[in-house]
Parts: sequence; C-alpha cells; structure tokens
Amino acid sequence: MSETKKKSDVLIELAKRRGIFWPSYEIYGGVKGLITLGNVGFEIKRRLENLWIKYFVYSRNFQIIESPVIGPRSVYVASGHEAQFTDKALKCDKCGSVFRADHLLSEAGINVPEGASLEYIDELVANNMVKCPNCGEKFSKSFQWLLMFKTEIGLGDLGYLRPETAQGIFTEFKRLYVHGRSSLPMGVAQVGMFFRIEVSPRQGPIRLREFTIMEVEFFFDPETNTGPSDDRYLEETLPLLTAEDQEKGVSELRNVKVKDAIKNNFFSNNWIPFFLVLTKSFLNALWIPDGSYRFREKLPNERAHYAKQLFDCEVMLESWGWTEVAGFAYRTDYDLSGHMKVSGEDMSIFISSTNKRIIPHVVEPSFGAERLLYALLEYSLRIDEDKRVYLSLPPYLAPFDVSVFPLLSKPEFIAKAKEVADRLDGFKVNFDDSGSIGRRYARADEIGIPFAVTIDYQTFSDNTVTLRFRDTKEQRRISIDELSRELSRLLSPAKPIV
Amino acid sequence: MSETKKKSDVLIELAKRRGIFWPSYEIYGGVKGLITLGNVGFEIKRRLENLWIKYFVYSRNFQIIESPVIGPRSVYVASGHEAQFTDKALKCDKCGSVFRADHLLSEAGINVPEGASLEYIDELVANNMVKCPNCGEKFSKSFQWLLMFKTEIGLGDLGYLRPETAQGIFTEFKRLYVHGRSSLPMGVAQVGMFFRIEVSPRQGPIRLREFTIMEVEFFFDPETNTGPSDDRYLEETLPLLTAEDQEKGVSELRNVKVKDAIKNNFFSNNWIPFFLVLTKSFLNALWIPDGSYRFREKLPNERAHYAKQLFDCEVMLESWGWTEVAGFAYRTDYDLSGHMKVSGEDMSIFISSTNKRIIPHVVEPSFGAERLLYALLEYSLRIDEDKRVYLSLPPYLAPFDVSVFPLLSKPEFIAKAKEVADRLDGFKVNFDDSGSIGRRYARADEIGIPFAVTIDYQTFSDNTVTLRFRDTKEQRRISIDELSRELSRLLSPAKPIV
Repeated sequence: MSETKKKSDVLIELAKRRGIFWPSYEIYGGVKGLITLGNVGFEIKRRLENLWIKYFVYSRNFQIIESPVIGPRSVYVASGHEAQFTDKALKCDKCGSVFRADHLLSEAGINVPEGASLEYIDELVANNMVKCPNCGEKFSKSFQWLLMFKTEIGLGDLGYLRPETAQGIFTEFKRLYVHGRSSLPMGVAQVGMFFRIEVSPRQGPIRLREFTIMEVEFFFDPETNTGPSDDRYLEETLPLLTAEDQEKGVSELRNVKVKDAIKNNFFSNNWIPFFLVLTKSFLNALWIPDGSYRFREKLPNERAHYAKQLFDCEVMLESWGWTEVAGFAYRTDYDLSGHMKVSGEDMSIFISSTNKRIIPHVVEPSFGAERLLYALLEYSLRIDEDKRVYLSLPPYLAPFDVSVFPLLSKPEFIAKAKEVADRLDGFKVNFDDSGSIGRRYARADEIGIPFAVTIDYQTFSDNTVTLRFRDTKEQRRISIDELSRELSRLLSPAKPIV
Repeated sequence: MSETKKKSDVLIELAKRRGIFWPSYEIYGGVKGLITLGNVGFEIKRRLENLWIKYFVYSRNFQIIESPVIGPRSVYVASGHEAQFTDKALKCDKCGSVFRADHLLSEAGINVPEGASLEYIDELVANNMVKCPNCGEKFSKSFQWLLMFKTEIGLGDLGYLRPETAQGIFTEFKRLYVHGRSSLPMGVAQVGMFFRIEVSPRQGPIRLREFTIMEVEFFFDPETNTGPSDDRYLEETLPLLTAEDQEKGVSELRNVKVKDAIKNNFFSNNWIPFFLVLTKSFLNALWIPDGSYRFREKLPNERAHYAKQLFDCEVMLESWGWTEVAGFAYRTDYDLSGHMKVSGEDMSIFISSTNKRIIPHVVEPSFGAERLLYALLEYSLRIDEDKRVYLSLPPYLAPFDVSVFPLLSKPEFIAKAKEVADRLDGFKVNFDDSGSIGRRYARADEIGIPFAVTIDYQTFSDNTVTLRFRDTKEQRRISIDELSRELSRLLSPAKPIV
C-alpha cells in the first residue's frame, strides 16, 4: 500500500517538476478539474494522438474532421443531452457546497438505486438526516445538474460547449456521406476538446472538466454491413466481462476468442468486437500489458441515454482501480433520427443492394486522451534498484526521439555535437551540454527519451559515437554515418494487427 | 472583377464538395462564424500546424504546452480583457438585430473617431437619424459588447472561454521558467482553440467565433537579451508599412533591410524583426509569394490594450483585400505585472549578470490557423487553359502524399496497386480504383495531391510504374524499388532561413 502510494507520488512530483502536467491557475488557488500539459506532456500526448489516428483513421481509410466546440441549443435538444445528460445534485444552503447526490449518499452508507427520482432522493436525505460534510447544515431539495457548459452565441442565443464531438459529425452526415463517395460502411473520426461540468471533480488528470476525445462514428447498414470482410479479428482473444456475468455476481474475466463470443451472442453486432480487437492492438502499442485492461459491458442502468449496448475499456490504475479509458457504444440510428425529427432534414440514404431507404446505424469507439496519457505514464514509470527513475515509454511516444550530448563542455565537443544534431534532421533532438554526463542521462531518462548519443574523445579519431539505451543503460559504438538509419529503425512505430 | 469573383466561388464550391470546409449546422439554418473542416481541410490544417511548430518551436528549442480553454474570471480581470476587450454595439429594439456601432455608422458614411465614448456614439446616431438596416426602426442607447464567451465553471463561478491562449502561459510562468532551466530568453508556444463573440460575424473562414491560434510568448530581459545572437536576420529584407508613414498618408511599402530598419528605430526591440523574418520564411514555405504579404504597424489607436507596439502580417486576398493572418505584439511586462498585482504572487526573476530582479518582457508572434489555411488555399488554386482545377499546394502540406492507381480495375492491377501502396509505409496514400484514370487524376488534382503512381501493363514486365506530377501533368517511369526514396525526397519540407 505504501509502495503503491509512493509510485503515484513519484509520478505527480515528476510531472510538475519536468513539465508533464500540473493543476492549472495555481496562482489563483487553482480550478478543480483543469490541468496544464507542459512541454513534455504536450509532446507525449501529441504522439499518442498521432498513433491513435494511425490505428483508427488511416489504417481504415476513415475520414477525420474538425467541427466547432460550440453548438446551438437545438443540436443538444435533438441529441437528448439537454434533457438527459444530468446528474442529481444536492446543494448546501449554508456554505454553498454542491455534491453528487448518489456519491454523497453512498459515502454515508445509503444505497441509491439507479434512476431514483429527485423526490426519492429527498426522502432518503430526510430520513437519514444526511448533512453537509463541510459545514453540518441540512440540504434543501435535490436538483438536476446539467453536465453541459452553457454559453450565449449571440445576444440571447443559447448554446452549449460540446459534451462529445459526435454531434458535430451527425449534424454534417449528409455532406460527409457525399465526401465518403456515398457508400457504407463509413467511418468519420474526430480528435478534439470537449467539456463536462462534473459536480465535484477531483484534482488530477483523471476526472477533468476539459478533455481531449478521440472518437470514430462508424456508420453502417445493419442488414448489409454485418461485419468486417477481413476475418482475422475472429481469431483474437479478448478479456471480457459481460453484463450477464455481472448481473449473476461474477466478476472474473472471460478470456474468450471473438468467434466464440459472437456465437454466445455477447455483441449486438460484429463491429463492436472488431473495434475491441483494434483497441487491444493499440494498447499493446502503448506497452500497456495484457492483464492490465479489460472490456466491461455496462449494465443497462449504467448506459448513456443513446446506447443500446456499451462496453468500456478499463485499465487498472494504482490509485483509481479499474478506470475507463475508452467506450464502445452501439448508438443505433438514435442520433440521426433525432436530428431528422428536430431539424426536418431527411437523413435517410438509399441502399441499392436491398432497394431500401435506411437510416444508418452507428458504433462509436471513443477514447479519452488525457486518461490514456495518464495510464501510459503510470505503466511506463520505473524505479530501478539504484533508485533511478525513468519512463519506459515506447520510443515512438517519447517527448524527444534522441538526446545528443557532448561528453565535455569544451568548444570542440560542443561543435561536433551540434554537427551530429544537425545531421539528425527529421528527429526531435534533445541537445544538452550542461552538467555532468551522468546528470544529463538522468534528466533524459526521467522524461523517457529512449536513446542518447554521446560525442566523446574517440569520436574525433574514428567518427563514431556511443548510442545509449534508456531502459538497459547499455551503450554501443556506432558510426555517425549510420546513426540516422539506425534511429529510424529503432523509432519505427507499431502497427495494428487487424 | 468577375474573374476575381469566379475564382473565389470556385474555391468555396470545391471546399464544400470535396470536404475542405463549409458552414456548420446547416440543417439547423447554420450558425454565423462557425465552420467545419472536412477530411481534406483537416489534414491540410494539421500539416500547416505541424510546419508552424517546426518553424516557431522546434527550430528555436522553445517549449510548447497545452493549457485549458476555460479560465476563471480573475485571470481575465488581471489581463485587462474583462474591462477592455469589447466593441461598442447597437441593438434594434424592434427586430433585435445587433450591429457594431463603428461599422454601422461608417457604412452610413459617418466617421467614428477611435475611442469615441458611448455617449458620443449615441449623439452621432441621433443626429444622423441612423436606423436599423433590417427593419428601419430607431436604436436605443449603444452599449459595450464583451467579446469573450461567458460560462459558469461551477455553481455561480463565472469563467470565460479564452480569447487568446496567452494567459494560460502567463499564469503558469513560474513553473514554465523552471522547466526552461531558469534562463532567459525563453519561448513558450501554444497551438489551440480560442473564442471571440464577434458582434456580427460573416460566414466563411475569415471572421470566425472559434479559431485555432498558433502563438509564442517570448520572454526576455530588455536589458541583457537585446536580440538574437545569430546575425543572419539583419541582412534580410522586409515589406514594411510603418505607423509613421501611415500617419503621413503614405501607403507604399518600404522594402527595407532589417539592419536599416533597426537604424531607423522602426522597432521597439530586435526580437520583433527577427520574428518577422522567420514569418517571411514561413510564408515562403506556404508558397505565398513575396509581394502578396506585408507587415503593417498598427496605429496607436488600433492596438490591443496590452500592446506597446504591434505589427500585423497581412496577406492580399481576392475577396477581402489586405487581411490579417498574424500579429506581433510587444506586450512588455503588462501581463505578468497584472497577474502579480491581482494574484499577489511574485512574478519577478533574478538576473545574475546585472544583479537585478526583473519582470520579463514579452514579444508575441501570433498566427490564425484558419486564415492562413484560407490564404494557402486561395494562393494554391489554379485553373489552367483547359479548365482543369487544381490546388498547387506545397507537397508537404497536401492532404495526401501520393495517389496509387491501378490503370484498370482488373483484379491483377488492383492487387499489384495494393502491394505498391503497402510498400509506401509512412506515406499517406490515396488509393483509388474507381472510374477512368483521367477522372481519378482530376479528383486528386482538385484536392492538391502532388504525386500519382499508376500501375499499368508495363509494370508487370519491368516492375516500373508511372509517377505523375500534379502541376505539370508530366509523367515519368520509375522502378517500384526506388519509389519510396524518391517520394521522401520530393516531400521533404522546407526549412527556416534563420
């Protein structure tokens, strides 16, 4: 337990000190749920996003777009968010503190059934004499807390900051379908910011008010697009926890082959397991080991209002236990139908093979970039026997590709090192000539730079340098002429298995 | 004139049809000032941002961070935005239309002096009997229109959506200074969304309510960091329009060497011309030709409240004339001092060479990504003698690196083309096997794909393909084994000249 705590403390301290992440606006006392990514954190996150785009967009020939953060109210009426994207909350009349009703009651040992009404919650609060944990005062009536940020677009025009990027795809479906050459299945992705006003967010990178989401809206005809034509995904094994098992009180995972899971009717359609397999491959590329993540089906009362079936990808984190990093929702034709109804625009398309007009169905793989970043960092953090702290990041996700160090801070060493750095055009180089070489290695290891090139005495006689490997501290000599090619090889990113 | 109009119409039509950009939420009647970037537009913008990062961050070893979009009110009190980031507006009491007072009056032929009070505007409106252009009704009193979007962060906690990314850097200055090894000068960049509620934005990609900004806050000690140590920028020539010239009624540019401009005291400090030279080099990399952009110093009454000196980079656009795409503000110690005053946190640092505590000064180069994207597209649009429409984009900014086409849609041609595409790992490939080869070339040209590889009969006998060049339509044969290296060479991005 104390060992556990220590590791996460090491990470948080390192994150602040070296510019990975920290709570924003500390000079104004901080704002809960907002963090700043520093130079190192930004770069790791950017590479993580690029890898995701490679796996979930380029490798599938999907589209990727950028739609506005602000949406007019009608969009979020049609999507059901205005009515249903809420938490029930309690506000203390005396000190003004606000709490999520279910969290507060369950912390007081009182079970709140899903879907309990405001009246029922008020009854529970009264009967159990629940009081404000901050000041001891009683609560007045509970209320619906809207999880969307409101704003005015013009004078009197209500708008919302998007709570997901999805609606910016659904509203543009008709154009996107044309850009996709009017054929299904069609995937449209987006990587961008979204916003949720959590009632009481914790500090740290797990429960935020601003996030980056990476998601695909995958449109298909449930009658004719019954699954991927490439069968390879059927042979893969997934760590699954089904809703049925959970309802029976079973909490052990099934490690089950996709084709067997399909036979057992675990999935509403075959695109879900396909995306779960792709996700497994993506997590492997993050070096998050098998056994540390699972795909848990959400129970009917846990699902978002638009989802007919929903799987979460959860990663085991030291401080937070099983933590959602991605969701896979079967949204059916819920959203397109909603927009069709409210806007009056026809969202149906004609399928020539069946001679029918249909409204496409949607499966949505959706990833939280900041949570994945945190998971990546936690799984990469190492403290070795001589207390060296380093991040064992996959090389293609590190904040710099390579360090270049002159062994000594003499002019001829520095000049030669700069010359070597200049030849590494196309790589992101951490050039550092201050302090002892040991300290420079340590600084580079701490932020996960996978390779270090050092210019030493021998360089001047035979044009070789040392190439040092972060995890093993192994060093080997390499000719400057071969350096660029060798680094390209070492840094080449992983590829999807399906 | 009609020719001009036609070219911009061609671009807007192309942008909608091929997924570059279009007005968002059309099914709900649209929202002024919001656009969606499609698959093609997103990719060009992303590459544009990456090139900017290369020029303005990596090549200078600056930091780049990501701070929240939402800020607590106190941040924008300290920055002066809440009080001063406003336009004066008029609202029609009958139809509710809102107008920028200065725009409305100047369209009615009435000159409004900069800094005119609300009372003075009301007088002008009354004396000239200015009426609502939409319904003919009179206006009631003018008012201050705040250009920031308001929101509530928690219950009753007022916050703003950032109107610039800069404050997310200034508030974190003390940490960032440590991450930068506690030395000046120091550059910290950010690429991200920001928001402004324009009173009445036009449709289109020029005047938006959500933008992507790419900016650097460059911190320096005005006493000891008097300019770049590398002198090369002094020999470069800049197209300048000074405030003094404008005040004298001169509108011709001076094409002036930086060292001469410095001698003439055109700049408050030498970092400004340095960043102007870097910008010139960046615009050249966008193939925006010399003569199509200028650096105009803003007049004292045109400057933002925080700027002691301000240059705009303006690009000549067909429909909008000289259009601001970047600004270079000398913000002095205005922001850090403001935060020091309001938060009570000491923002000063110790300079050992002068043995003084100082508050660093700031120069801020700041670029609008969507406007640059539009300028890039407009300058790249070509219509040749046989009415072929194509985007002559720099290869490293195109939405795909290369097309791969089988000449015929026979299985053996398709299989061979897929094999070639697979070998082009690391390139973004547009694979297309439908329609005539001429049509496929045309589709690729329209979105600016610089190169096309075609698998034809000869491929099966000698393992060569044709490599076609977008702008010239020239084709030459190349061995499949050499393709990857040749494309790498052709696609290698431009580099900064300083």
